[in-house]
Amino acid sequence: MAKKRVYLFHEGDKSMRDLLGGKGANLAEMTNIGLPVPPGFTITTEVCNEYYAAGQKLPEGLMDEVRAALTHVENAIGKKFGDPSNPLLVSVRSGAKFSMPGMMDTVLNLGLNHDTVEGLIRISNNPRFVYDSYRRFIMMLSDVAYSGQYDLLSKHDFEHIFRDFKASLGVTGDLEVDADGMKKLCEIYLDHFKKQTGKEFPQDVFVQLEDAITAVFRSWNNERAIVYRRREKISDDIGTAVNVQSMVFGNMGDDCGTGVAFTRNPATGEKHIFGEYLMNAQGEDVVAGVRTPIPINELAARNPEIYKEFDQVCRTLENHYKDVQDIEFTIEHNKLYILQCRAGKRTGQAAVKIAVDMVNEGLITKEEAVARVDPNLLTQCLLPVIAPGAKYRVLAKGLPAGPGAATGIAVFTATRAAELGKGGAGQKVILVRADTSPDDLKGMLAAQGVLTERGGMTSHAALVARGFGIPTVAGCSEIQVGPDHFVVRATGQIIREGDYISLNGTLGEVIEGEVPVQEASLSGEFGEFLSWADTFRGAFGVRANADTPKDTRIAIELGAEGIGLCRTEHMFFEGERRPVVQRMILAQTPEERQAALDELLVFQREDFKGIFEALEGRPATIRLIDPPLHEFLPKREELIAEVATLKAQGGSDPEKEALLRAVESMHEINPMMGLRGCRLSIVFPEIVEMQTRAIMEGASAVVKAGGKATPEIMIPLVGHVNELRVLRERLEATARKVEEEQGVKIDYSFGTMIEVPRGALTADEIATEAAFFSFGTNDLTQMTFGFSRDDSDKFLKPYIEQKILPGDPFESIDQAGVGQLMQIAVEKAKKVRPDIKLGICGEHGGEPRSIEFCYRIGLNYVSCSPFRVPIARLAAAQAALGKGVSDK
Amino acid sequence: MAKKRVYLFHEGDKSMRDLLGGKGANLAEMTNIGLPVPPGFTITTEVCNEYYAAGQKLPEGLMDEVRAALTHVENAIGKKFGDPSNPLLVSVRSGAKFSMPGMMDTVLNLGLNHDTVEGLIRISNNPRFVYDSYRRFIMMLSDVAYSGQYDLLSKHDFEHIFRDFKASLGVTGDLEVDADGMKKLCEIYLDHFKKQTGKEFPQDVFVQLEDAITAVFRSWNNERAIVYRRREKISDDIGTAVNVQSMVFGNMGDDCGTGVAFTRNPATGEKHIFGEYLMNAQGEDVVAGVRTPIPINELAARNPEIYKEFDQVCRTLENHYKDVQDIEFTIEHNKLYILQCRAGKRTGQAAVKIAVDMVNEGLITKEEAVARVDPNLLTQCLLPVIAPGAKYRVLAKGLPAGPGAATGIAVFTATRAAELGKGGAGQKVILVRADTSPDDLKGMLAAQGVLTERGGMTSHAALVARGFGIPTVAGCSEIQVGPDHFVVRATGQIIREGDYISLNGTLGEVIEGEVPVQEASLSGEFGEFLSWADTFRGAFGVRANADTPKDTRIAIELGAEGIGLCRTEHMFFEGERRPVVQRMILAQTPEERQAALDELLVFQREDFKGIFEALEGRPATIRLIDPPLHEFLPKREELIAEVATLKAQGGSDPEKEALLRAVESMHEINPMMGLRGCRLSIVFPEIVEMQTRAIMEGASAVVKAGGKATPEIMIPLVGHVNELRVLRERLEATARKVEEEQGVKIDYSFGTMIEVPRGALTADEIATEAAFFSFGTNDLTQMTFGFSRDDSDKFLKPYIEQKILPGDPFESIDQAGVGQLMQIAVEKAKKVRPDIKLGICGEHGGEPRSIEFCYRIGLNYVSCSPFRVPIARLAAAQAALGKGVSDK
Repeated sequence: MAKKRVYLFHEGDKSMRDLLGGKGANLAEMTNIGLPVPPGFTITTEVCNEYYAAGQKLPEGLMDEVRAALTHVENAIGKKFGDPSNPLLVSVRSGAKFSMPGMMDTVLNLGLNHDTVEGLIRISNNPRFVYDSYRRFIMMLSDVAYSGQYDLLSKHDFEHIFRDFKASLGVTGDLEVDADGMKKLCEIYLDHFKKQTGKEFPQDVFVQLEDAITAVFRSWNNERAIVYRRREKISDDIGTAVNVQSMVFGNMGDDCGTGVAFTRNPATGEKHIFGEYLMNAQGEDVVAGVRTPIPINELAARNPEIYKEFDQVCRTLENHYKDVQDIEFTIEHNKLYILQCRAGKRTGQAAVKIAVDMVNEGLITKEEAVARVDPNLLTQCLLPVIAPGAKYRVLAKGLPAGPGAATGIAVFTATRAAELGKGGAGQKVILVRADTSPDDLKGMLAAQGVLTERGGMTSHAALVARGFGIPTVAGCSEIQVGPDHFVVRATGQIIREGDYISLNGTLGEVIEGEVPVQEASLSGEFGEFLSWADTFRGAFGVRANADTPKDTRIAIELGAEGIGLCRTEHMFFEGERRPVVQRMILAQTPEERQAALDELLVFQREDFKGIFEALEGRPATIRLIDPPLHEFLPKREELIAEVATLKAQGGSDPEKEALLRAVESMHEINPMMGLRGCRLSIVFPEIVEMQTRAIMEGASAVVKAGGKATPEIMIPLVGHVNELRVLRERLEATARKVEEEQGVKIDYSFGTMIEVPRGALTADEIATEAAFFSFGTNDLTQMTFGFSRDDSDKFLKPYIEQKILPGDPFESIDQAGVGQLMQIAVEKAKKVRPDIKLGICGEHGGEPRSIEFCYRIGLNYVSCSPFRVPIARLAAAQAALGKGVSDK
Repeated sequence: MAKKRVYLFHEGDKSMRDLLGGKGANLAEMTNIGLPVPPGFTITTEVCNEYYAAGQKLPEGLMDEVRAALTHVENAIGKKFGDPSNPLLVSVRSGAKFSMPGMMDTVLNLGLNHDTVEGLIRISNNPRFVYDSYRRFIMMLSDVAYSGQYDLLSKHDFEHIFRDFKASLGVTGDLEVDADGMKKLCEIYLDHFKKQTGKEFPQDVFVQLEDAITAVFRSWNNERAIVYRRREKISDDIGTAVNVQSMVFGNMGDDCGTGVAFTRNPATGEKHIFGEYLMNAQGEDVVAGVRTPIPINELAARNPEIYKEFDQVCRTLENHYKDVQDIEFTIEHNKLYILQCRAGKRTGQAAVKIAVDMVNEGLITKEEAVARVDPNLLTQCLLPVIAPGAKYRVLAKGLPAGPGAATGIAVFTATRAAELGKGGAGQKVILVRADTSPDDLKGMLAAQGVLTERGGMTSHAALVARGFGIPTVAGCSEIQVGPDHFVVRATGQIIREGDYISLNGTLGEVIEGEVPVQEASLSGEFGEFLSWADTFRGAFGVRANADTPKDTRIAIELGAEGIGLCRTEHMFFEGERRPVVQRMILAQTPEERQAALDELLVFQREDFKGIFEALEGRPATIRLIDPPLHEFLPKREELIAEVATLKAQGGSDPEKEALLRAVESMHEINPMMGLRGCRLSIVFPEIVEMQTRAIMEGASAVVKAGGKATPEIMIPLVGHVNELRVLRERLEATARKVEEEQGVKIDYSFGTMIEVPRGALTADEIATEAAFFSFGTNDLTQMTFGFSRDDSDKFLKPYIEQKILPGDPFESIDQAGVGQLMQIAVEKAKKVRPDIKLGICGEHGGEPRSIEFCYRIGLNYVSCSPFRVPIARLAAAQAALGKGVSDK
C-alpha cells in the first residue's frame, strides 16, 4: 500500500513539519484552530525525495491524488478548477521543514487560461485585475517552470517587456496601465512564450499544475537554495513540500490588500504588531520591495475592524505557538485571510528581549527562553556601533533594516562584493543595490553592510540583513542607484565603486566616508538572559582567548571566567619588540642572545602582570612560544628578490645577504610540522625559560600587591610524554627559583595542549605529566585531516560544494574524526588522572555545535574569542539543558 | 640482605648474561665445562646501574666483596695480589649483555707497582717483559682512569712519548727497545703522570683496582659506546659487568703468544678455524692492528700440539653453544688459555652459510636457522659488486676485510667523512686511515667504504666493516697514509682528498677512480635459506615497491610476490615526459590540457604494460598521482631570483614572468598537507582518469596477449570515505569503459592508502568503499607526530640524543602512536569487511621490527624496496615463528 502523498490542510497539524514542511504544518494547524485560511492541501516532502530518487520525475499516481484533493478544495470553496463559469485559482508554493525565505519558487494565480480569464471577468467584473493576474501568472509559470529550458523566459525578461510596453504607452507606473493595456500585455507575453518555446502557453490547467509542482521540487536544488542551506546548515536530504492553496486576491480593488506582519517587532523585540501592507496588491509586491508599503499600524486607522480581527489572530497564534509569528495575510473585499504563519526571524536583540518578555509574561519558562535563542544570533547583540563622539556627515536616510554600523568601499553588484569582500579578497565592502533579490545572497554575505534604494522592513534585503546580522539600510529613496554608482538626490553627490561609505543600520543612516566603528557591550536584558543561561550550564565553564590586559578586561565584561589561551608570541610581534626578537634569533653568541632575552623579559613581565591584574585571580592558561622562529624574520622571497636585484645591479649588501643566509638556514618546507612549539623549546630552552620567569615574576608582583594570580603554564605541540616531562622539569625549576627569589608562593601549574594526533592517542602517558589539557583543535584538525589551513581553500571549497565533507571542519569540530581523537584523549587521560582539567582553546570553542560536543565528552570548559563569550555561555547552557544544536 | 654483587667464574653460567654480561657468562660457562680459563670473577651489571643511580659512585661494601673474591682467585692460582714475592696481576674488562667490541675500556697487567715489578722480575727472570708490561699498564690505567680528569694522559699521549723515546734511541720498532730502555720508559711515564696530575701514579694495588673498576663503569657512557648502542638499538639501561681475571701473558717470550679466532670463517661462513695470532704479544696488539698478525693455520705448522688443543676447544665450544664462536686465547710458555668466547660476528653471507651448514650438520633445526640470522645482515648478501666487464686499474691490494664494492672520494679523517658522507652532505666518500679506532666509528658509518694501511682481518676496522656491511680493505701496506693524502708505494702516485677511488672489499683491491658498481642477486645457499623462511611465514606476504618493469623484475627475482606500491608519478619525472607534464599543468584551455594528457596516456600505458608483463599475473597495487603539481614545475625561489635579476638589468621575459605567476599561484605554505593525493584528483579528475585508462589499457594488452594482469588501483591520502566514494565511482566508470572498448575482463579492484590519521580513525566507513588498504606509514608518521620529514632533522636528532624519543619513527614504526592508529584501522575495517586485504607500503615495510608489528596486528603483507625483499621475507618468517625482534 502506497504512502499517503497528499494531505488536505485539515488532515495535518503543526507536529508534522518533517512531512508537510513548516508552511504546510502551520497552514494545517491554523486551519484546525479555526483561523481564516483559504482551503488547500500539501504534497509531502517525501514526494520531493521520490522525485529526485527517480531522476527528477514525479511519482506515478501523484496527480491522481492531487486531483482528488483538489475536488475537496473545490467543494469547500464552491469553485471549480479550470471551470470557466466559476474558476478556482490556486497558488503553488514550496515549504521545507526549515524556512528558506525566497530561496525556492512560487506560482500564483494558477488555473488561468483563455477560458477561465473570461469567466473570471464575468464574475469579478474587474477585467484589469483579471488580466493583471493573468500576466503575472504567465510570467511566473514561465520563469519557474520553463526558463531553465528556454531562453528569455525569466521574470526579468518579462519585466523588461512590460517596461518597454509601458514606455510605448508613455506611462511609468503599473497602475497606469488599464484593463485593455493589461489584456494587450497578456497577448504580448503569450506571443513571446510561443516565440521562445515554439509552443502555446499551456491552457490545460492540470498541465499548469503539474508543471508548477515539478518546478517547485526542482527549485529545491537551485543554486541559491543550496547556498542558503549550506550557510544555515540545513541538510540537503529533507526536501521541500508543495502547498497548493486556493487563491485569495489582494489586488481585486481598493477594498483588497495584502501584507506581512510580525506579532512583535523583529528588530527590537518590542511588543507591538510590526509589519507592512499594500492595498490592491499581491503578496509578492510587498516581499519583493518593488512598491514601498505602508506600516501596519496605519491599518488600524484606515480599517479598524480588519485590524482588530488581525490583532486577535496575532494573539491567538502567539499564545498557541508561544513564539513570535511572522504572518502573511490578504484582504479580499474586506475579508481577512491568513495565508501563512511561521516563527518570526528576529535579530539577536529581539530574540533576547522577546525571550525575556515572554518569561515575564508567564508564556514560557526560563529554561525554554534559554533553549530557544540561537546562540549565533547573539553576535548581533554585540554588533558594532559608530564610536560615540565620532563626527560624521549623513548623506541620506532610509529604513533601519539591519542594526549595527558598517564601513567599507561601495560596490554595486553581488558578484563584485563576493570577489572583493569576505571570502574573496577580504576587503571591507558595502553592497549598494536598487533592491536585492535572492540572487544577491552571496554578495550580501560577503559585505560589511547593505544599502538599497527600494524595499521595506520586510523586503528581501531586510530579511537577510536581520537573519545574518548584516548592518543594512533599506528603502533609502533619498538616493538613486545606478549600475556602478549612486547619486544622493538632494545634493547630486555621486558615490562610485571604491569610494568609502558607512552605514548606521540601527538608525538607517547612510554616511559619507569611513567612520570609526566600535564594539558594543552587554545590555540589561541581555545580561539577565545570560545570567539565566549561566545557572543552567552549572560547572561547565567559559573562558576567553586573550593576549593583552585590554582583551582580558573585555572578555571578563562579557562573562569570561578566565583566560583559556594567552598566546605569548603575540607579544613578540608588537612594534618595539620585534627588532629585539630578531636580535635574539640572529644572535651569534650566547651573550648576544641572552641580552636580547633580558630585554624581552622586561616586556613580558609587564604584559603578564597586566593580565593577572585584569583577571583579579581568575585562572590564565598561558601558552609558551609556539610559532617557528622564522615567522619573526623578514620574508624569504622578498630577500631573495632584493639580493638578486642588488647583485644584478652590480651592488651588494653583506648584511642583507647574511640575513638571507640566516633565513634560508631556518626555512622549512612544511613549517606547520616543523621546528615549533615544544620542539623549539627543547632545542632553544632559553626562550621559554625567559617566558616562565616573566610569568612568575609578573604573578609575584601581583601577589605582593595583595592580589591573586593563577598561571596555568601550557606547553604546546606535545606528541610524546617525554617532551612534556623534559620541559616541565626544566621550567618548574625556573618557577620554583622565582618563587624563592621573590619570597612568594604562586598557585601555578603545568599542562599541555593536545593538538597533535599522537598527543591524543597517548593521552594516558601525557596526563601523568600534565595538570591540565587544552585541546588545540585548529592544529588537531589540520593534522588529523592532513589539511594545511593555509592551503586548504583550493580543495575545501570544492569539497563542501561537492558534499564530500558535510561542512568546514575548521568551523565546526569534525566529530567523527577529530572528535573521536578528543574522546580517546579524554577517556585515556581521566583513567590515569581523574581530576585533570580539560578545556578547548581552538576557534571551535566559540561555535555552538562544537561547544555542545565538548560538553558531551566531558570537558570542563570552552575558551573562545572575547566577543564569542556570550554565545559560548548560551550554547553551553543549551548543551547542559540537552537542548543543543544536535537535539533540535 | 644485599644482593650478591660479585660472582666467581664457577658460580655463574651462560644463562646469566643479564647479570654477568655476555663475557662474564661465557667465562663462567667455559670454566664449568672444563676449558682452560684463567680464574677470576665478575662484578654484576646491577652494580653498574647502582653506580649511575648513586651519581657515579661505587656502592659501599663492593670493594669488600671484591677483596673476598680476589682471595679465592689467589688461592686457586697460588699468587697474591700486591705481593712482591709472587704477585697476582689481573685484567679488568667490561662486558655487557650484548657485545660492544672496543667500545668500553679495559685495563691489563693491573697489580704492578715498584715492588711487584721487582718481584715479577725475580720470578720471570725477564725484566724486559716486566717493564714492557708495566709501561703498558701505566699507559692504560692513565688513559682509562685519569685522562678524563687531567690533560695529556691519553694512550695517544703516551704513545707519542714512546715514539719520541724510540727516536732518541735511534730505533723504530718496539722490540728494539731493550729492558733498560723499557725501564727508562716506565720512569719517563711515571714522571709524566706526576707532572700532569701533581700526584704519584697509584702504588696501592687496591686503589688501582678500584679506579679501574670505576673507569670501566664510567666507560659505559662514553660517547662511542652511546653511538654504538644507538646504532645497534641496545638499551642504555642494561649496564656493563666488570670482569676481573688473573693475567696470563702472551708477551713473556717466544714460547708465548696471543690470538683471536673464529670457529668458522666469519666472512664466508666456510667451516675452518679462522683467525690470527702474534707470538710474544699481548691481545691488544692483535685487536688494535698495530702489528700485522699471522694467519692461525700457520700455528698448526709451528706448534701442532697447541693448535690441536685449540681446535678441540673450538669444536667443544661450537657443539656446546651450537653457534660460531669468536675466541680470544693466549699461550703462556706453551700453555693455552682461553680468555673469552662469544658468538662470532659474521657477514650476512657467512650467517646464511653457517645457518644452512649447521642444519645440514644436524646441529640446529631449520626453524632455529631461520630464527637466528639477523634480517638486517642480509643486505650484505646483496652487496654491490663491480659491474662485470668493467675495466679498472688496481692501485694496491690489502686484506678483504669487508666484502662489497664501493666508490667515492677519498677523505682522511672520520670527522670529514661524517661531514661529507651519509647523514652529512650526502656525498659518497671512502674513509682512508692509517688504522681505525673506535673513535672513527661515526666516520666509518658515513662512508661508502673504508681503507686502512694497517690492521688485520680482526682489526677494529674489519670488525666494524663486517658488522655494518661496509666494503673495506684493511692492512693495505702497499699504500702509505698521510694526514690528507695517501701514496701508492710502488708508483709514488698520490691520492688527495676529493680524488675518486674505489674499493673491492671482497677481493681487497684499491682501485683508481670511479668504477660502475652493480647490485648482486641471490646465491644458491641464500635462496635455500630464504625458501625455508618462506615456509615458516606462510600466508604473510612480501611485496615490493617498484615503479618500472626493471625494478619489478629485480623484485621478483628477490622473491617479491607482487607490487605493493607502484608510484605512478615517478613516471612523470622521466626525461621526455616532464615537459609534457608541465604543459598539462600550465594548460590555459581544456583542449591544451587534454592534448598533453593524451601524450602522457601513451607513455603510461606502455609503463603499465611492461610492469604487468614482468609481474606474470602477480598483483600490482598502483597508486594514482600523489604529489602536488608544483613539484613538476621549476623552483619558485629560482624563478623569483631570475625575474628580479632580469628586471634589475632592465630586461624582461614575459614567458618566465608568466611561469612565475603560475608557480606563485600554486605555491603552498605546507605542501605536505596541501593539494595532493585524492584532493588533487577531485579538483582535477582528468589526470587520474588518464591514469586509470592507462592502467586498464596496459592490462588489456597483456590479457589479450594471453597473459594475466591484476591491477589494484590505489587512491591516496583518503581521510573521508566520500573522497574515496566519489573517485572510485568516477574511475570505476572509466575502468568499465575500457573493458567494454577492449572487450576483455580485467581482475581489477579499487582501494586506498591509509596515511591520514582520520583515514585510520574512520576506517570502518572507508572500508565500505575499499577492497584493500595499504598503510602509508611515512605520511601517517608525519601527520600523527606532526613531524615534517623534510624539516624534522633539526629536532629529531636532538630528540633521539636526549632520549625524548626511543628512536627515529621514520625508521621503525612508532608502535604506541602510529601503530595504535594502525590497530584501530585494522579492527574497524575488519569489522565491516572481514576479507579486506591489508598491507603496508611505507619504508617501514622493509624494517624487521616494523614487519613483526605488521604481522602481529594482522596485515596480509608488507611491501618494501626490492633490495629489502629478502630481509622482509626473513623478518616475516621470524615474526610468524614468534622469534621476531621483540621476542629476542
